Amino acid sequence: MSPTSQFKRHFLNRQVLITGGLGFIGSNLARRLVALGAKVTILDSLIPEYGGNRRNLAGIGRKVAVHLSDVRDRHSLPAFVRGQDFLFNLAGQTSHMDSMTDPETDLEINCRAQLSILETCRQHNPGIRVVFASTRQIYGRPDYLPVDEKHPLRPVDVNGINKLAGEEYHLLYSEVHGIRSTVLRLTNTIGPRMRIKDARQTFVGVWVRRILEGRPFEVWGGAQLRDFTYVDDAVEALLLAATRPEAEGQVFNLGGPPPVTLQQLADLLVEVNGGGRFVVKRFPVTRKKIDIGDFYADHGLITAKLGWRPRTSLRTALGRTVGYYRKELRHYV
Amino acid sequence: MSPTSQFKRHFLNRQVLITGGLGFIGSNLARRLVALGAKVTILDSLIPEYGGNRRNLAGIGRKVAVHLSDVRDRHSLPAFVRGQDFLFNLAGQTSHMDSMTDPETDLEINCRAQLSILETCRQHNPGIRVVFASTRQIYGRPDYLPVDEKHPLRPVDVNGINKLAGEEYHLLYSEVHGIRSTVLRLTNTIGPRMRIKDARQTFVGVWVRRILEGRPFEVWGGAQLRDFTYVDDAVEALLLAATRPEAEGQVFNLGGPPPVTLQQLADLLVEVNGGGRFVVKRFPVTRKKIDIGDFYADHGLITAKLGWRPRTSLRTALGRTVGYYRKELRHYV
Repeated sequence: MSPTSQFKRHFLNRQVLITGGLGFIGSNLARRLVALGAKVTILDSLIPEYGGNRRNLAGIGRKVAVHLSDVRDRHSLPAFVRGQDFLFNLAGQTSHMDSMTDPETDLEINCRAQLSILETCRQHNPGIRVVFASTRQIYGRPDYLPVDEKHPLRPVDVNGINKLAGEEYHLLYSEVHGIRSTVLRLTNTIGPRMRIKDARQTFVGVWVRRILEGRPFEVWGGAQLRDFTYVDDAVEALLLAATRPEAEGQVFNLGGPPPVTLQQLADLLVEVNGGGRFVVKRFPVTRKKIDIGDFYADHGLITAKLGWRPRTSLRTALGRTVGYYRKELRHYV
Repeated sequence: MSPTSQFKRHFLNRQVLITGGLGFIGSNLARRLVALGAKVTILDSLIPEYGGNRRNLAGIGRKVAVHLSDVRDRHSLPAFVRGQDFLFNLAGQTSHMDSMTDPETDLEINCRAQLSILETCRQHNPGIRVVFASTRQIYGRPDYLPVDEKHPLRPVDVNGINKLAGEEYHLLYSEVHGIRSTVLRLTNTIGPRMRIKDARQTFVGVWVRRILEGRPFEVWGGAQLRDFTYVDDAVEALLLAATRPEAEGQVFNLGGPPPVTLQQLADLLVEVNGGGRFVVKRFPVTRKKIDIGDFYADHGLITAKLGWRPRTSLRTALGRTVGYYRKELRHYV
């Protein structure tokens, strides 16, 4: 059976809740699930600084139920969670800098709301299958590369601390209360529907915006190594995590094609775009303390256990991303 | 210089805030600080199920300022934090079982309030020196014994997850914002002024109560190894942590005399008390999933760096504890 027909068997006519479903990864996931015949409900707060954008559902808007609600509102959670077969728990505050200037908001969303969601599952729908989107940020500055799941967890910002608590709640509820959950630690994810207005979600977003607007983009540092997952590959991992029994209670890194320096990434973006300029700047002192240096992930575990691997080259990923925003720019800036 | 005169130099006429200062460790610390000439302010919510007890300040009540307030009330925190030289941050929800039945309360106290306290320090008193009481619970089931600070952190209950976040906030604020903090990971602490009404703070509490009331106490399991720190030794560690520059931004385990099985501890308690009975029961199934098996800590790091070591034998610790409650029982049950 092809992956798609396998997934169809799992998702056709099934009820799926996506928190943060108007966001970058959530909306790409929703589009795939609609194609697979799932009945998708989206919960998203559309906070302007976050990743949600109604344009992300263009073409499938009538096929999903969208509720403007916030995961911090614990009172509405039972109504969302009841009757769902799957929960893709993607709502989050993602900006590392914002987590340092407004740490309590980050805690409310990435920590407290996650516990409320799991408590709601325990009380109202203990049979639900949950996938939680965590982040490489919880590893902090790597002791070794590539970073596997056994690497010590030493978050360097409030966001990392709270995301770590969030994933631990999921694993605990899986272990102790039988709320079957899988945690994916995402690395830098890029692709259509990411936030490009600024660097709050990913610096690649604002690079793409600037190059399409004909302005030079800024590369901070330039020598740091990073890996990138194309969003379709991340969606594939989310679907595998949700449907494979052997993924229950487990944590998996995602990864990407071979890592590149930011300078190489910038060069490739200019090449793929057929032109453009960037300036290399010194890494800002204010961010130095929460920077993690080089990072790339070892995704060997999810390859071995679930058969996932990144299928999209960085060149293809950037090409599709630039192609998308060339047409859609006005909806995202 | 003797340790006491060293401490006097640091604390004489200095302003010291203790959160949870009516509790077990907090009140013993307050008594010591008063003896050293410090000006002690206590913040405690006196929640009946927690460790606070006004009797704990008997004899020093007029020498400390006691405010019934809750660390969750972020609005009153600035008034407490301003002007303090030291903050001993001991307020916490300590019951592992309660953290599973009411996880959101545990999060509010052990996680959210800690972040509020540190934000308050950052905004109103960045020069303050902070010591945070963490717990061995964050290690989870040990991979090896004794457990040193390099052991992986895998909390097995909501309390452990939240305490881990709490200590990470302290280390982060020390590193990034210069709020000088030290984290002590306490193991089982026993001594006068611990909660003995029930097993919410430590099972040794309810053992002492029962033996003094002439009733048999219950030993669950019995073969598990544990280590115990006498409260005066824990107080010594808190004072060292607060005053040694080399402790800033660091995490240290506390430990105790050689570990014993619960059965041995029970036998010793009966011996020290000059009589008494206990029954060994099977470990309750409901608690099995959050039990950590054998545990004892390696306190080599704090010995090497700060010169701390446990000075009180387990026999002496139990003797002083039983002696205290023989006189004071009616104030604690």
